[in-house]
Amino acid sequence: MYDIMKVELISVGTELLLGDIVNTNAQYLSRELANIGISVYHQSTVGDNFDRLIQCFDEALSRSDVVITTGGLGPTKDDITKEAACRYFGFTEELNDKVWEKIEERLKKYRKNNVVSENNKKQAMFPKEAQIIDNEYGTAPGAIYEKDGKKIIVMPGPPREMMPMFDNKIKPFLSKESDDVFVSRYVRFYGIGESNLETQLEDILDKQTNPTIALYAKSGEVLIRVTASGKDKEHCLKMIEKEIEKLKDRVGKYIYLIGDESISSSQSELEKVTAALLVEKKIKIATAESCTGGKVASMLIDYPGISDVFLEGLVTYSNEAKMRTLGVKEDTLKKHGAVSYETAVEMARGAAKYTGADIAVSTTGVAGPGGGTKEKPVGLVYIGVYFRGVEKAYEMTYSGTRNLVRDRAARDAINFVRELVK
Amino acid sequence: MYDIMKVELISVGTELLLGDIVNTNAQYLSRELANIGISVYHQSTVGDNFDRLIQCFDEALSRSDVVITTGGLGPTKDDITKEAACRYFGFTEELNDKVWEKIEERLKKYRKNNVVSENNKKQAMFPKEAQIIDNEYGTAPGAIYEKDGKKIIVMPGPPREMMPMFDNKIKPFLSKESDDVFVSRYVRFYGIGESNLETQLEDILDKQTNPTIALYAKSGEVLIRVTASGKDKEHCLKMIEKEIEKLKDRVGKYIYLIGDESISSSQSELEKVTAALLVEKKIKIATAESCTGGKVASMLIDYPGISDVFLEGLVTYSNEAKMRTLGVKEDTLKKHGAVSYETAVEMARGAAKYTGADIAVSTTGVAGPGGGTKEKPVGLVYIGVYFRGVEKAYEMTYSGTRNLVRDRAARDAINFVRELVK
Repeated sequence: MYDIMKVELISVGTELLLGDIVNTNAQYLSRELANIGISVYHQSTVGDNFDRLIQCFDEALSRSDVVITTGGLGPTKDDITKEAACRYFGFTEELNDKVWEKIEERLKKYRKNNVVSENNKKQAMFPKEAQIIDNEYGTAPGAIYEKDGKKIIVMPGPPREMMPMFDNKIKPFLSKESDDVFVSRYVRFYGIGESNLETQLEDILDKQTNPTIALYAKSGEVLIRVTASGKDKEHCLKMIEKEIEKLKDRVGKYIYLIGDESISSSQSELEKVTAALLVEKKIKIATAESCTGGKVASMLIDYPGISDVFLEGLVTYSNEAKMRTLGVKEDTLKKHGAVSYETAVEMARGAAKYTGADIAVSTTGVAGPGGGTKEKPVGLVYIGVYFRGVEKAYEMTYSGTRNLVRDRAARDAINFVRELVK
Repeated sequence: MYDIMKVELISVGTELLLGDIVNTNAQYLSRELANIGISVYHQSTVGDNFDRLIQCFDEALSRSDVVITTGGLGPTKDDITKEAACRYFGFTEELNDKVWEKIEERLKKYRKNNVVSENNKKQAMFPKEAQIIDNEYGTAPGAIYEKDGKKIIVMPGPPREMMPMFDNKIKPFLSKESDDVFVSRYVRFYGIGESNLETQLEDILDKQTNPTIALYAKSGEVLIRVTASGKDKEHCLKMIEKEIEKLKDRVGKYIYLIGDESISSSQSELEKVTAALLVEKKIKIATAESCTGGKVASMLIDYPGISDVFLEGLVTYSNEAKMRTLGVKEDTLKKHGAVSYETAVEMARGAAKYTGADIAVSTTGVAGPGGGTKEKPVGLVYIGVYFRGVEKAYEMTYSGTRNLVRDRAARDAINFVRELVK
């Protein structure tokens, strides 16, 4: 619908070709560029090789307007990205005194015992045609080189340097080239699978144009990104709001968060939302875990403010511990087994009684790979909850590895707590 | 030293260009190919676009002998990898009855409520020139196409289908093209940083030719891969053994495992090794966690056999819980604070006494982001250990996010247990 700028990514680094590291930079940049309406048609990875990089520039700029590179800006002779870009455009590098001053300052500050090395000067070499981009988190600046309407943008390889440089400098630079703004919101679902959600929203997904709606499934939950483009942010937000209302009408009961933080889209927010709810409502919690073995406690404690309401976590993996600390009856364990509705309920109740908590959650199950029987197969987990005198347990069945079963059970336990206290 | 086959990777899929998923296939294949001595000079990613993919084949095969693709073998009209490869080589696709029979069988088995869809027939279309590769974990077979000494190998995109296909079918096929075998062993270090290890091994690293030695730093530990090439496996193993002896002489005290599982190289084995030691030596353990909040317990419980020796885990995040369950003295908390050597020792001792464990480990620290003071800054963690009457605590300082501090502390706690019981 618009005349869209074409961008290609080139990742430079032999460590990528050897499979030593995963190329997360390519994913980050692709997603962020898609967010501002820029299409990436091609990603490539090359080693620290001058001729091959020049060839890549040639191929890429024959079909695209902009090439963004990551990596190869270090001080060693293996680092050749800047040099190749300058050779490609016919620019001549020279020492930039201002940049060198900054690099020296940085090196002196962070490497107290090291002398400033001469080869760092390589990172201060730029042609006069370059637009130099500050690096707030490292010595290697980035740069924008431009000739005859084609651009090469070079950025450092370490994600902690590259991401803020892109967000704060390159993204605004590229956004200026587009007339429209792009705004996204993220809707997070728990308790419904991706294909089920897709089926329930089929007509909405089929008709989407602007805003666009994209589904992502991650670690047991689904995320929907709603992106609108338009003349201004306010107008976009209104369009998004209308779309989100449709989602709420249709599948609202599975939504646990609506937010705009694009950066955290790869991580679940379920435990943060749940912990924040507990803190906000001053509901004191205790956990009693068997198969999840401390995961539920650990997920809650990842929230910094939790200390006000997290009373104690009890990892009672053995029957002795279940009896000793939680007061689970020997009779219950004998009659129903450790993995049972009854034991799960007694564990939750016992944790609440022992600690004085308002709410307690328990897990007991067969995480595998061994230990399964016909009646109680691997993957069977009971999640017990006790909330101010009311108690019950949920019978769940999971598939996958031991770690996956434990993870899903812990996340479901957290979600049951959230549903009870919200 | 050998005439090495040149291989390029092409990842096909619009979801990669949108940044919806990280390209872990490229890393996996690059690493596995490097392991058998095949150099990858170039990786590319393109969307589900026929013309762009043809152009990619053309560029890649102009400089390499083999192209390996992943993705684009599904049943929808968006999936075009096979079709593009055939067009590129001038091959004509036709329905392969045997393949179609297998696909039908598979679909009937796994989709009980679904009719077999006509568009799945697309996955059974192959030219007579193709060498078809079975897919044990999905409907889409792979294939090897060859013409004039150039090869295109197509594989499905989902890693759980692609990885076994590569390991069992493609890797042996490519290995046949080389006269030599390649054998690797992995040496795992804990308690020494990457740069420190590199410095101590500088001369060995500088002189390496065959075997080659590669360092990888992952989640607080370092992994060294030693790879030898030669006429047979036995000869390679002897060369590797000699190299590993040198490492043992120099930095042996940091080695916690020597193994050959390449697949698990991205995951730490520290908790498995520690849990296995406890089980083997029948040493009963309890944990008492404050800042790590259940991580230590959860890491140990990830080992399936741990139930024999894991007595109980106590997540005593609040002072009340430290006193109630672990018997930490109020006086100690007042005088030294919850984050102190004394509290850490009392926590470990208390956990051992309460549960009757042989060994107990405790953590208490300032995980941040708030709560730090000048005397007790964010990142300060005490790790206490009690082992059959002997008790002490370690003062550690970590940097990074709350989650990183908690993670590093939990891993160090596990390592202290390992060092004590080994």
